[in-house]
Amino acid sequence: LAVISLTTDFGSGDHEAGVLQGVIWSIASGAHIVDLTHEIPPQSILEAALLLWRVSPYFPDGAIHVAVVDPGVGTARRALAGQFGTQYFVGPDNGLISLILKRAEDNNEPVSIVQLDQRKFWLSEVSNVFHGRDIFAPVAGYLAAGTPLNKLGTPIHDPVRIELPTPKLIEGGWEGQVIHIDHFGNLATNLDINHLKRSKEVVIEIKGVEIDGVVSTFGDRPVGSLIALLDSSGSLAISVVNGSAALNLHAAVGDKFEVHFNK
Amino acid sequence: LAVISLTTDFGSGDHEAGVLQGVIWSIASGAHIVDLTHEIPPQSILEAALLLWRVSPYFPDGAIHVAVVDPGVGTARRALAGQFGTQYFVGPDNGLISLILKRAEDNNEPVSIVQLDQRKFWLSEVSNVFHGRDIFAPVAGYLAAGTPLNKLGTPIHDPVRIELPTPKLIEGGWEGQVIHIDHFGNLATNLDINHLKRSKEVVIEIKGVEIDGVVSTFGDRPVGSLIALLDSSGSLAISVVNGSAALNLHAAVGDKFEVHFNK
Amino acid sequence: LAVISLTTDFGSGDHEAGVLQGVIWSIASGAHIVDLTHEIPPQSILEAALLLWRVSPYFPDGAIHVAVVDPGVGTARRALAGQFGTQYFVGPDNGLISLILKRAEDNNEPVSIVQLDQRKFWLSEVSNVFHGRDIFAPVAGYLAAGTPLNKLGTPIHDPVRIELPTPKLIEGGWEGQVIHIDHFGNLATNLDINHLKRSKEVVIEIKGVEIDGVVSTFGDRPVGSLIALLDSSGSLAISVVNGSAALNLHAAVGDKFEVHFNK
Repeated sequence: LAVISLTTDFGSGDHEAGVLQGVIWSIASGAHIVDLTHEIPPQSILEAALLLWRVSPYFPDGAIHVAVVDPGVGTARRALAGQFGTQYFVGPDNGLISLILKRAEDNNEPVSIVQLDQRKFWLSEVSNVFHGRDIFAPVAGYLAAGTPLNKLGTPIHDPVRIELPTPKLIEGGWEGQVIHIDHFGNLATNLDINHLKRSKEVVIEIKGVEIDGVVSTFGDRPVGSLIALLDSSGSLAISVVNGSAALNLHAAVGDKFEVHFNK
Repeated sequence: LAVISLTTDFGSGDHEAGVLQGVIWSIASGAHIVDLTHEIPPQSILEAALLLWRVSPYFPDGAIHVAVVDPGVGTARRALAGQFGTQYFVGPDNGLISLILKRAEDNNEPVSIVQLDQRKFWLSEVSNVFHGRDIFAPVAGYLAAGTPLNKLGTPIHDPVRIELPTPKLIEGGWEGQVIHIDHFGNLATNLDINHLKRSKEVVIEIKGVEIDGVVSTFGDRPVGSLIALLDSSGSLAISVVNGSAALNLHAAVGDKFEVHFNK
Repeated sequence: LAVISLTTDFGSGDHEAGVLQGVIWSIASGAHIVDLTHEIPPQSILEAALLLWRVSPYFPDGAIHVAVVDPGVGTARRALAGQFGTQYFVGPDNGLISLILKRAEDNNEPVSIVQLDQRKFWLSEVSNVFHGRDIFAPVAGYLAAGTPLNKLGTPIHDPVRIELPTPKLIEGGWEGQVIHIDHFGNLATNLDINHLKRSKEVVIEIKGVEIDGVVSTFGDRPVGSLIALLDSSGSLAISVVNGSAALNLHAAVGDKFEVHFNK
């Protein structure tokens, strides 16, 4: 049985998210569909790309990820479907696949991308404003129902790529950046375990505050403490035990911070 | 396999939405269930009716739509199930079906409505405050499991109907109204492509601001522009490219605006 | 087919909730999964325990409830799976099961609890910060796929228990407490039908306001009225007809109130 995930910026209060499921089930009636989230900040392609990168390793082979964060809908931007390792992606060509594509390439996994141009796999009427419903959902349905990727479109090799901000090497350490703030107010950053290989004996300086060392888990410090730890995706995160680092530090995505290795 | 959709004003943070799925699965164990939304504004029957009207064309034959926006629960208001074309509805008799019923009638599709009065298809205990759980979910479960509509209740022909506000013909154009504001701040209106048949060369006046013409899609204008376009349901919508028309115009549901055809 | 429910404080905007479904489907591919809610207030074990208690009677036999509200993740707190009557629970040992355990005991239903200590039923890498993904979701998947409970861990008999605040007997009545506020602003309390056996002819005093008697349903009073009624779980609730008691009374979880029986 096919598994399909949905990631959009549609919100959960309107009809758009549910329509995707109706369209998919009209074509692939037994599909299991999960709403990963419909709360991507409007037009935040990078946040959706990051979520797909975090989620996909935990999905079964053959899973199809539909992502619709699509500020260019109705313009000349291409529509894509792709295979990355054992899983599939369907959505606009605007960088959403950047991180899962890079990982598949780094791991020498099979990669195959087609530009969607076969209208027989779309709804019969295609609006200018909702390709999620009219193109991406039906294509995902046909993929789930067994249509091979190469029937859905024409191979391309130049998908749009975007990148996470790169950490900057500074004297005695790194300058990093906050790339996501979660529901608890934890700050995810663009540093990970590789940047801490030299040592976890570091001092982290963010918004004028210093954090000593990287702990293993929240319970290592008292409630209310500001801590640094490796989060569940292996990224360096800044948190408050049972609280919100975002609120405590008035932090926002894009904020910079420094990691200094102890001498 | 039956497909069941859920639309309520219960919110996503409480137990009520999930209970519906438990009850349905207790009766129709293989049903695929989708939460269309649980974020209908409290008691907003018209918004739920509009959502059902927008969503149902994209669901497969046999789909069962359960809608519970039910300020009259526990009073004399009737409980309904109905068939409209190839799909089904279960919920209170307060106007929720108005728009899908009218469309089925306009299209000469089969329509059949019963008042739910067969307690053997309800939970054994029926509370005064949660018919979603005690009546509508089990009835949807039995429908999904194959019970024919006419076993569930007694035919009626006078369901409660509500209407979208009617556009008003004015000199040289139309006066319309905002009927829904979505997650992006797009303003959906009660005008549609039929009101623009004469021409799309129009000037739209809303809250003291003028919009020239109806564009095809968001990308036709620079980011930040106020535009008018036909949305994915064919309604005239007022939007800001990659922004929020609701915020820019301080607009609310019920706000009026005028469309003037160019001479 | 197995039914699995998910209850967490992860929010709906991040990747954590969806990852659970991916992990479960990787092990139990046909499972039907419902998100009960991911909006439990952060670290509010009691609210999650209450939700499980309200929801589980309406789920089919064999349902597996995964609850991850887990401030102690990565510390010495135990991980549990348990059977309570005909249903299952998987999650941390911090009191989440307290109310469903007590009900099973009160009803003399079978109860069996194991401490999860069999790593072969976990993901191969276990992080310190996300046992929902690494332990609880895979264990739920194996349960759903038919692994017996007693293979998953070692029996224990001392799970952590927490309690709802106990109503206090006062002269001529009861002192109760608000234990949950729902999406509509209804105040659920720790009093129930048992505390009103003597009479429903009561005066309720909350925040300086008096409510006369307990009504049957919302429609018994005009829109805007402050009322007391028995909610769908049999608890005494304080509501405003088509409005919000929480807003009207500026009420919060933990607020006390008194019920006085009429002489």
